[in-house]
Order: sequence, then C-alpha cells, then structure tokens
Amino acid sequence: MAEPAGLRGPVLIVGAGLLGTSLGLALRHLGIPVWLRDVSPENLRTALGLGAGQLAPDIAPPPQLIVVAVPPDVIGETLRWALTHHQKAVVTDVGSIKTGPLEQLRAYGLAGLARYVGGHPMAGSERSGPLAASAALFDGRPWAVTPHQDSTAVAVDLVLELVSVVGATPVRLSPDEHDRAVARTSHLPHLLASLVAGRLAEAPPGHLALSGQGVRDVTRVAAGDPELWQQIVTGNAPAVVHLLGEVRDQLDALIAAVSKGRRKELTEILAQGVAGTLAIPGKHGGPVKATASVFVSVPDRAGELARLFADAGDSGVNIEDVRIDHDPGRPTGLVELVVAADSGEHLLASLESRGWVTHR
Amino acid sequence: MAEPAGLRGPVLIVGAGLLGTSLGLALRHLGIPVWLRDVSPENLRTALGLGAGQLAPDIAPPPQLIVVAVPPDVIGETLRWALTHHQKAVVTDVGSIKTGPLEQLRAYGLAGLARYVGGHPMAGSERSGPLAASAALFDGRPWAVTPHQDSTAVAVDLVLELVSVVGATPVRLSPDEHDRAVARTSHLPHLLASLVAGRLAEAPPGHLALSGQGVRDVTRVAAGDPELWQQIVTGNAPAVVHLLGEVRDQLDALIAAVSKGRRKELTEILAQGVAGTLAIPGKHGGPVKATASVFVSVPDRAGELARLFADAGDSGVNIEDVRIDHDPGRPTGLVELVVAADSGEHLLASLESRGWVTHR
Repeated sequence: MAEPAGLRGPVLIVGAGLLGTSLGLALRHLGIPVWLRDVSPENLRTALGLGAGQLAPDIAPPPQLIVVAVPPDVIGETLRWALTHHQKAVVTDVGSIKTGPLEQLRAYGLAGLARYVGGHPMAGSERSGPLAASAALFDGRPWAVTPHQDSTAVAVDLVLELVSVVGATPVRLSPDEHDRAVARTSHLPHLLASLVAGRLAEAPPGHLALSGQGVRDVTRVAAGDPELWQQIVTGNAPAVVHLLGEVRDQLDALIAAVSKGRRKELTEILAQGVAGTLAIPGKHGGPVKATASVFVSVPDRAGELARLFADAGDSGVNIEDVRIDHDPGRPTGLVELVVAADSGEHLLASLESRGWVTHR
Repeated sequence: MAEPAGLRGPVLIVGAGLLGTSLGLALRHLGIPVWLRDVSPENLRTALGLGAGQLAPDIAPPPQLIVVAVPPDVIGETLRWALTHHQKAVVTDVGSIKTGPLEQLRAYGLAGLARYVGGHPMAGSERSGPLAASAALFDGRPWAVTPHQDSTAVAVDLVLELVSVVGATPVRLSPDEHDRAVARTSHLPHLLASLVAGRLAEAPPGHLALSGQGVRDVTRVAAGDPELWQQIVTGNAPAVVHLLGEVRDQLDALIAAVSKGRRKELTEILAQGVAGTLAIPGKHGGPVKATASVFVSVPDRAGELARLFADAGDSGVNIEDVRIDHDPGRPTGLVELVVAADSGEHLLASLESRGWVTHR
C-alpha cells in the first residue's frame, strides 16, 4: 500500500459488509480516521470490534470522503443522502453497476453531483459479511473508477488515491463503458454458467458420475447468492439484455449447425470461442504468456503437497498456476502445475528425478 | 494398478495418439504384450520409441483384445475392420460418443457384434499426440463402459478388467445413457463456454481489463481444439440438440425476466443454477463436502509456494484444492487454499502465526 498524499480522512464508510469493513481495515492500517455506519447493529458491532473504524463522534470535523458500500438496490438513495447531508465531502461507492445510481442522482437534480465519482473493486463477490473482511482484500485487484462528465478533478483524484493506497489497480472507464464491460466479463458468464448448472440439477441418476474438471470450472460461479446476483443483473438490465440477445442469435446458429450437420459453421463458432479465451489479459495484466502443464500424481494426505512444492521450488521454476483434481473413489490426486512454456521440460525432469509420477 | 486376471494379451491398439499410447504404456508396465497400429508413421514411430508396444509380428497369436483409439469420425469403420479381421478378439474403443458407432456396426449386420463393448475414459481431452502420453493418464479417472444388449458377459468382463488394471474407475452405462450424460456434463458446458468466450472476442478495447477469475473459469474449456470438438458434437447431435433446445427455452425466460424486471423469475433461474452446482459429485466421488477457503497473499517468486505448503502441511490440515490468482500488474499472487469446513479456522490461525497475510 502507498502512503496517502491528499487523503487524510476522516473517511465515512456507509455499509459494514465485506467490502466496507475490508476498506475500513485497510484505511485504519494506514492511520486514516474511519467512521462506520450500518443499518444492521450486528454488522456494525462486528466491524467496530474488528477495528475497521469507529462511530462518528457527536462533535466532529466533516468527512473528507464518503464511501457507500450498501446492497445494489439502495445505492442510489444512499448516495443522495451522502451528497445532501455532507456538503463538502467527495462521495464514491463500490457497487457493481454505475449508470443506474448516476441516473437516479441526476433525476434528483442535486447540486453536489460534481463531488460524486463511482467506483467498483473486482473483489470478494463469493463471500459476504464483515467477518470475511480483510485489509488485504483489494491488494492487486482491478478497481474501476468511473467519473461522470461533471465530476471535479479534485473528486476524481481523491478516489484514485483511495484505490491506490489500499493496494488496488485503478481502471478508469466511463460509467456506461463500465456497465457494458462487466455485463460481458461478469454478468453474462454468470448467467450462462447458471443455465448450464440448471441442466445438471435435472440430470438423471448416475449421469453426473461422468463429471470432469471442465463442467466444474464452467459452473463454479453459478454457486453465488441468487438474491445478490438478481439485484446486480436487474441493475444492469440494458447491457445484459443486449449481450443475451447476441448469445441467443449465436445459440440459434449453433443449434442449426449441429442439427443440420453443418460442420464448417460449427467449427467457426468453436474457433471464435478459442479467440475469446486468448483475448483475456494475462494473469499479470500483460499479454498472455505461453505456458506448459506438468501433471503429477500426489497421495491425498497432509504433507505431500508441501513435499511436491518444495521439490518444484528446488527446480528453480516459478509456478504460474495450480489445479488439484481429486480422483473419484481413490486416495490420490492429480496436481497440474502450470509453468512458463520453456520451463516445462526442466520441471518434468527435475520432479521425475525425485521419484514423482508425472506426465504432460 | 491391479494385477490382470483374465487379461493376458496380446492387446492390439489401433491409433497411437494420446489415449492409445498412454494405454500401451500402462499395459506394458503390467507386462502385457501390446501391438500398435497407426495410419501416421510418425505417431507410430514415436509410440514405439516410448515403449508403448511393438509392431505385430508376421506370425503371431491372435489378439485377445483390440482397443480402437482413432478420431471420432473414423471409429465406426475401424471397429468394423477389427471385428471382421479378428474373429476371436473382444473389441472396444475409447471414443467420446457411443451410440453412433454402434448404429454403424448394426447397419453393417456383423455377426461379431456381441464381441464389441464400448468404452470412454474421462481423460486427456486438452492435449493430444503420443508425446503427451503417460502410463498414469487413466489413474483414478472415471471410464465409462457401455455394453449393448447383445454384448457377451466375457467381452464386458474383459473390458471392465482393462479399465481396472490401468487404474481407472469403471462407470457402467448403456450407450444411449452415456451419450445423454456426456451431452450434459461435457458437450453442453463446452458449447456454452464457447458462446461466452465468443462475446469476449468482440469486446471493445479496455473492457477485458475487468476480467476476474470467474470469466477465466467459465471459458477455460473453450480453448479446446475446434476440429476435434466439431467431430465430438456432430457425433452426439441428437442429445446435444435436445439440451441446447432446453437452454434456448431457459434463455428466452431469462431474457424476459431481465428485460421486464421480473425479479422473482430471475432469482428462480439463478437458484436452479445453485442447485446444479450442488448436484455434481464430490471430488472424491462421494457426496459434496462442505469446504472453507483461506486466501493467502504470496510473493510471486520461486520457493514461496513451497514455503506456504510446508507451513500448511505443518498445520496438519489436508488441502482439498488450490487456486492461484495472480494480480494484474504486481508481483504478488493470491492463493486460495480449499480445506474441509471445520479446518478453516485452524489453518488460518496457523498460517497467520507464521507471518502469512491471510483472509477468508
């Protein structure tokens, strides 16, 4: 985390859930005064107990910055309250949707709208509540910062500084661009994963015994909280419906190609999918690196993974990613070590020389 | 791997790609004679060089078992050749589709059909070729065995034994059930992942900077070889089209729910997805275990993962799964350790006492 420059607080955080409490912890670690509010006395008590901030004193200096961290459905009205009751504060939020709340604020005709700059950290969507909070939650995560056309430079700079001091990587987009981007990178994948998973719920007995790692990966995000995702998707309805319409057109083309045996069209749809997987930025934010996978059979008991990583570490090769695929019905796991393409052979030889059963 | 009982060979493997060569290596490790054939002299030379078997001698005993391991489009005619030219052998294959080749064989009116029993190991779909082969490839993987109504008990038992001796877990299904099962657990997830990934290929510049782990997981399988998947999907067209039709109905309902703000219907579709993720069998083949995730910030350099797993191992907790989420633009990674639900607190405390930055 960087040293704060213009950001000195107090920061008022409205909503002491996972994101609000984590932000409070990160700011407190930097010595910045934080005041907390929440409609839930239990959440508030927990967040205060964790040291994420304190209650605003009766007589107090005005907050420099207000961060709204409430559920999607009530962000607009909470932002209105913040801008109205604190006439000097810069105001931001951490909601998944950016155009809806902004339109609400515009409809209210608020004079203070120039002090508002939206934000959206890409962190923590699968767990919730202050007990899951951590000062490290935002460390290295993308955090969208979405000024509108009337946002002041002072407000934009302060929100960018907030993002930087808690260790996140700012990604500057307009509110409209942001909503279209997350419709594509988050909401559409979630909804189609839900449709695939929904078909599994209806599977005849025994059929799911053939489930492999692929279907587990495709459907993992579909385990997310339906009520939260309902609010997110509803809040971004225009962008989501637009993309769902594109998918429906592609699905019709796919059904026609498969049912009529038009192999060339089917191959083209599949090839466009391959191109899409290559378009995702590399995990380090740079271009996608060529990687190799080394598979190792590992007994499924404590200590064996440590031994494997110690041996892999001794080879001097940096592990880019790991997967563990436990075998149904037997006590061994298959571990996939992903490394730079030119390191695969070396790692394989090094592990085999230490007695590991490996393959590529 | 178990000791062979009735399986003594020779085993003739037709097709020296990833699956055929791996099977040859596994059988040779057990001392069973293996003969290899391939239309590609290069594949054949590689597989022979790896020790996966030998060329059939000019004067030789007849093969006890023939395993057809050729691309989907030519399985039917290769099975016909095997049953016709080797009148005593039991014949199986390792193809992704089971009803199509069987129908082809029935249409030929072969007397030897009773000696055929289909098979399908759930292994090795993302890589290909004999160089990627390993005797351990099938270790602990599900392997569908799909007798038809006229298959002899002797043939079924021999194929079940083949599956067992190479370390795989047999899953017995009818050919029709198999094809409907993989349409649901493999082909549908692959196709919808391709549609999601296809939308990424068309993303405006900058939008994919907001990509998180979710979209990476959903789209990973879409990187598979379009030509191979075209053959697989085409070969299973009826079952795939049936499920795609169900998805289209659900997609229409989803679009209506989102565009008209019908929140209850949207929540129901999402909740059905949650139910589907819970229906996938646990990684150990038993019921799904409740798990907890512990997140740890790890410097992205060789040796740090080894130190983490050594410390985790010292805590006595068994690691069920691992994910590494490299942070865009910075040299730390976030490692997710998945453990049994009742071990999470202990692991967290243990790692924190050793100086790791963690959160749940």
